[in-house]
Amino acid sequence: MVFMRFRPQFIFSSVPRSITKPRIPPTATLAAAAARRRHHTAAVATSMAATSEDALRRALAERQAAVDAQAEAVRALKAGGGASKADVDAAVEALKALKVEAGAAARRLQQAVGAGAGGAAREELRQAVVNTLERKLFYIPSFKIYRGVAGLYDYGPPGCRVKANVLSFWRQLLRIKDYGMCGLQHFVLEENMLEVDCPCVTPEIVLKASGHVEKFTDLMVKDEKTGTCYRADHLLKDFCKEKLEKDLTLPQEKADEFKRVLAILDDLSAEELGAKIKEYGIVAPDTKNPLSDPYPFNLMFQTSIGPTGLSVGYMRPETAQGIFVNFKDLYYYNGQKLPFAAAQIGQAFRNEISPRQGLLRVREFTLAEIEHFVDPEDKSHPKFVDVADLEFLMFPRELQLSGESAKLMKLGDAVSKGTVNNETLGYFIGRVYLFLTRLGIDKGRLRFRQHLPNEMAHYAADCWDAEIECSYGWIECVGIADRSAYDLRAHSEKSGVPLVAHEKFSKPREVEKLVIVPSKKDLGLAFKGSQKMVLEALEAMSEKEALEMKAALETKGETSFKVCTLGKDVVITKKMVSISMEKKLEHQRVFTPSVIEPSFGIGRIIYCLFEHSFYTRPSKSEEEQLNVFRFPPLVAPIKCTVFPLVKNQEFDDAAKVIAKALTTAGISHIIDTTAISIGRRYARTDEIGVPFAVTVDSTTNVTIRERDSKEQIRVDINEVASVVKQLTEGQSTWADVSAKYPAHVGPQGDQE
Amino acid sequence: MVFMRFRPQFIFSSVPRSITKPRIPPTATLAAAAARRRHHTAAVATSMAATSEDALRRALAERQAAVDAQAEAVRALKAGGGASKADVDAAVEALKALKVEAGAAARRLQQAVGAGAGGAAREELRQAVVNTLERKLFYIPSFKIYRGVAGLYDYGPPGCRVKANVLSFWRQLLRIKDYGMCGLQHFVLEENMLEVDCPCVTPEIVLKASGHVEKFTDLMVKDEKTGTCYRADHLLKDFCKEKLEKDLTLPQEKADEFKRVLAILDDLSAEELGAKIKEYGIVAPDTKNPLSDPYPFNLMFQTSIGPTGLSVGYMRPETAQGIFVNFKDLYYYNGQKLPFAAAQIGQAFRNEISPRQGLLRVREFTLAEIEHFVDPEDKSHPKFVDVADLEFLMFPRELQLSGESAKLMKLGDAVSKGTVNNETLGYFIGRVYLFLTRLGIDKGRLRFRQHLPNEMAHYAADCWDAEIECSYGWIECVGIADRSAYDLRAHSEKSGVPLVAHEKFSKPREVEKLVIVPSKKDLGLAFKGSQKMVLEALEAMSEKEALEMKAALETKGETSFKVCTLGKDVVITKKMVSISMEKKLEHQRVFTPSVIEPSFGIGRIIYCLFEHSFYTRPSKSEEEQLNVFRFPPLVAPIKCTVFPLVKNQEFDDAAKVIAKALTTAGISHIIDTTAISIGRRYARTDEIGVPFAVTVDSTTNVTIRERDSKEQIRVDINEVASVVKQLTEGQSTWADVSAKYPAHVGPQGDQE
Repeated sequence: MVFMRFRPQFIFSSVPRSITKPRIPPTATLAAAAARRRHHTAAVATSMAATSEDALRRALAERQAAVDAQAEAVRALKAGGGASKADVDAAVEALKALKVEAGAAARRLQQAVGAGAGGAAREELRQAVVNTLERKLFYIPSFKIYRGVAGLYDYGPPGCRVKANVLSFWRQLLRIKDYGMCGLQHFVLEENMLEVDCPCVTPEIVLKASGHVEKFTDLMVKDEKTGTCYRADHLLKDFCKEKLEKDLTLPQEKADEFKRVLAILDDLSAEELGAKIKEYGIVAPDTKNPLSDPYPFNLMFQTSIGPTGLSVGYMRPETAQGIFVNFKDLYYYNGQKLPFAAAQIGQAFRNEISPRQGLLRVREFTLAEIEHFVDPEDKSHPKFVDVADLEFLMFPRELQLSGESAKLMKLGDAVSKGTVNNETLGYFIGRVYLFLTRLGIDKGRLRFRQHLPNEMAHYAADCWDAEIECSYGWIECVGIADRSAYDLRAHSEKSGVPLVAHEKFSKPREVEKLVIVPSKKDLGLAFKGSQKMVLEALEAMSEKEALEMKAALETKGETSFKVCTLGKDVVITKKMVSISMEKKLEHQRVFTPSVIEPSFGIGRIIYCLFEHSFYTRPSKSEEEQLNVFRFPPLVAPIKCTVFPLVKNQEFDDAAKVIAKALTTAGISHIIDTTAISIGRRYARTDEIGVPFAVTVDSTTNVTIRERDSKEQIRVDINEVASVVKQLTEGQSTWADVSAKYPAHVGPQGDQE
Repeated sequence: MVFMRFRPQFIFSSVPRSITKPRIPPTATLAAAAARRRHHTAAVATSMAATSEDALRRALAERQAAVDAQAEAVRALKAGGGASKADVDAAVEALKALKVEAGAAARRLQQAVGAGAGGAAREELRQAVVNTLERKLFYIPSFKIYRGVAGLYDYGPPGCRVKANVLSFWRQLLRIKDYGMCGLQHFVLEENMLEVDCPCVTPEIVLKASGHVEKFTDLMVKDEKTGTCYRADHLLKDFCKEKLEKDLTLPQEKADEFKRVLAILDDLSAEELGAKIKEYGIVAPDTKNPLSDPYPFNLMFQTSIGPTGLSVGYMRPETAQGIFVNFKDLYYYNGQKLPFAAAQIGQAFRNEISPRQGLLRVREFTLAEIEHFVDPEDKSHPKFVDVADLEFLMFPRELQLSGESAKLMKLGDAVSKGTVNNETLGYFIGRVYLFLTRLGIDKGRLRFRQHLPNEMAHYAADCWDAEIECSYGWIECVGIADRSAYDLRAHSEKSGVPLVAHEKFSKPREVEKLVIVPSKKDLGLAFKGSQKMVLEALEAMSEKEALEMKAALETKGETSFKVCTLGKDVVITKKMVSISMEKKLEHQRVFTPSVIEPSFGIGRIIYCLFEHSFYTRPSKSEEEQLNVFRFPPLVAPIKCTVFPLVKNQEFDDAAKVIAKALTTAGISHIIDTTAISIGRRYARTDEIGVPFAVTVDSTTNVTIRERDSKEQIRVDINEVASVVKQLTEGQSTWADVSAKYPAHVGPQGDQE
């Protein structure tokens, strides 16, 4: 059993609600612990590899022992003086051979534990992607001319368009009315979510109610001399990984210990972390100075609202609270009907101690969150049938705990078997799957991972994360949680405004209600100073206890009653309390709705999309590798380029006619008339992921080139815009238009 | 001459760049002063009204004097005892008549100065608009259940859609390729602006360079006992207005003084404001406690970046700085070509001392800014011809200074006469005009007001504000400024990174350059300790001075030279300095681009749009007034509603067929099947500004109703979606389709 700390999945910081939303540990005994998930799965994932790593480590130790023994033998031979030169030479040769073997074993171990072949390839891919992204200004480290600020990034022009496209597609999701999507002919989704737009500046009371002021923290240590701050868990993690990767002579038991520490890293308390840091003698990485004890650092950016300095405010760590505090108005706006959903897109902030992982862990990021409010007694969803047939990688907790991998499952089965808690949660999992894959996320590198019991707050019914695999590993990009009534209750209590829904009964219902009326006078006479404790204990009885007491009092006239607050039993007599079941007519049910919350980390989704869309291919001359982003038209920053093949007035005019037609059709495009080879111009637009290029090599008909196949078709100049429109809006595929229009294989073919 | 303080137009806070962008006072003598414009125009506007107000005030004083005299006479008659009852009665009657006259004069004055008829009507309109907006959740005071935070508002569902529509239309502006707009058949605008998206959290150094850390302040006073803060100018303004409006017996000279104070309010220094507050005995409004002296309060929300607490950051007060610091990358991205523009939409923050004016003055708001970089030597614009024929209200500084009103002017004339400084500035004024009027801003209540000389920073070439008239007066909603090279230079200096552009010459140019080489040795011998000042003064000579000295030295061998820093003349001899004109070959020109900056306050534009779009009309029974927003389809949160006239399966099915066709056509719509009268349902959608309603009263053909005329036409069910699409996308007007389809005048006509 692994313990929980405050925020699960802390590694996926730049985004997910599951981090940004405080979790209350299930029981008081877990109060000091927290849920930092990540290493659970890391541990599971490596458990299979571990066997071979252990074997390699043993093999290396054996080889090394053999080397040592042979070296000793050589020394003995030489020292003894009696051995022939041939004997000594043979022994030395044997030693050399053993050293070669040991070296090979060390390399195999190195590969298995460290940035081996796979790791190096991932690192290389990441570098290639990031270089292209920065060079093409998809993003820019913010305030670069001032040497930047860690964890802050700008989206440059193409990145900004990609982001706008992703957000606009997300907004469609809010009121999607989509026919025949994904080959599901009956797929008619209609939503009418209530989008709101709330400020980032948030008064303290709101984030006290939500728990962020108290619990939204990371553990930090300080360099005792310079004051430089570090995340305590990062230092311990780095130490253990370094030992495991670099120190190949590490004894097996030490290696096992470091691995265990890595596996439970997220679950260590401040004291445990501090003890480990002391035990291993970990010092400040830059100065080698000693470190302070770990202590919690609140990750919210604090500020002051108004001029007095007395009103504390924070930059919101998530957008959801803005929706919860508006529940009452939104519920009335929706005609007091459940279920309904509200949504918000906006900036969220997180003052990371020391940001790492580039665009995945940042100090300011865009969140898109949906809060779907439902009756806790009815979490069915009328449109679940529309997604029930979807099949994708799911990673329920049973598979995680038994060390297996994610499996292809049908969503309908997952819900009917109870793997996914309810239909509404399942419906949103399906919607998230469709959203991500239509953006271009690779189905094979997308999985839905269920939270382990120790990652979830006690109030949560069920939580799933959409995780996308990229060069940093599996990254949580969307969280889909059934958070029960927790958030609305917290704000009801703090504000005193009931955030509840009503179910009006068509006719009043008769209900039996337990009524306990203690007699203060008689209790006072009997218990004097302890009267209050007895009275409270009586009022707090469960229905079962009360009915038992009622029966006992009626038969025996008195009964023994345990009062916890007094630590003893007292005798209750008939006249001290009246207990009855009364019938009442109720006209409505008043309840706090449950909330089901899909929370999208837009920046993380976009980064993973960049990696999944990126590939390289040789130029025609094979002298260099060209970069390509295979963005679907939905995402592509520009849908189409228009190239006059050579510089002349006729071609330029024809290009303008086409551009005008594209504009009328609403297709974003650019004309590129620079006098470089057409191949170079193709390469330039491939690198920002433009899906189609129109090349004007005639004034009557022109070619359309598809980015990934590099195939070209020949189309009449008057049809170009409509063909490109069909392609970019998904009415036709490239195969459709290739079948309809003649292929072009001419001298102006790709020259990249 | 009116003095300047730091930020002009401080009243228009929630938005405009002109406020959020520091201005450096033109000369050192003005350094303590600031430009708070607003009252210039207020003063001008009231100057004509002032004449009649003065007359009324004099008339009232005369009547009051007559009353006093008559009252004295009555007292004398009564006291004397000799007067007959008839005489006394007559005198009393005369007194009564005089009092009635004085009362009437007081009411006339009251109307002229205070919230008179016009003011009351404005106030009433505002209340009606704001009530509707709040009730329909266009916006919601943020964190309402916690009693809110002044100056923070949420956009609720329909407001959020309006905002998204406005921003999406603004984005089109960035890459507009629009044909035949506004009846200008040749109107083909194509832009390819570079949109970026930068963080709100900004390190201090950036805002030090921009001047915000030092100068982005308002003057504040504190209640000396409770610490409550007030804006010093607000208290003084309230005091003067109260006196003028309520104290009808105010002597003329006092009234004149208060008016003068109101007119120069924005130009008062801290000391002057403090002196006035003392002179008038102004105390804290709530407690009547004495007030502190005024002192500057920085309006940026401050925070701390990272865990050490040592790295100060602010929430950005504008988005423009994010563009300036990226200039170099963007210039390279644009192929090192000028002109080009970058743009950004995002949140900006301003920690108001005490926000007023509802949605117009808020602490967090959305800005949309364009920074158009041009060669300072060529500010022509190739597409200016496309907007040159536009004619609208312009308010150049000459008209303001002479007390006239804004006049209809042709933009082309304004530029050719030099009223507008250059074509590029004029081009953007034209674009802003088209943007605002297409959104639905009333042309008659939109004017472009030029900044007065004392409102502009010395470096600014010219500035115009798009001002929209609403119930709060004329509100600055868009600023369009030619800020010269100021911003790029400021960041070049602070960061050490040259933010410059290059003009490569097609062939090298020979230029003559002045070269001044002082001889340190000879200067040292002659001036000893003063050597440095002399040397610096020599190097700082203008070309003219240098050539004069050169001539003098050549003819006379020595000359007298004034060294300001020494406060005296010195004698310079030939060997102390060599002055020559040298010829050099230059291959390129290196220069800092000018920036022309249109800055849109999205929240203010939307609020004005709400007021301009709102009207009421009687219900059919004339028992109540119904609210309508006449949003154009572009802005409307929902384009179309579908109403089955009565509840039955056939009509519901037909409604669904229509809804599906609307979805395919991309028209946002809702189906309203609630069982209330069709008139009520129309009224409900009129109130959120839905332009078209389809009523299903048959399964073969249905009616389409236009919101403002309430006319209906009858259209075949299969044509409905395409007709609505034409109407909402502007291909057809209501007149077009009314001519084509039969009018419907049936029993299901409007019943509101």
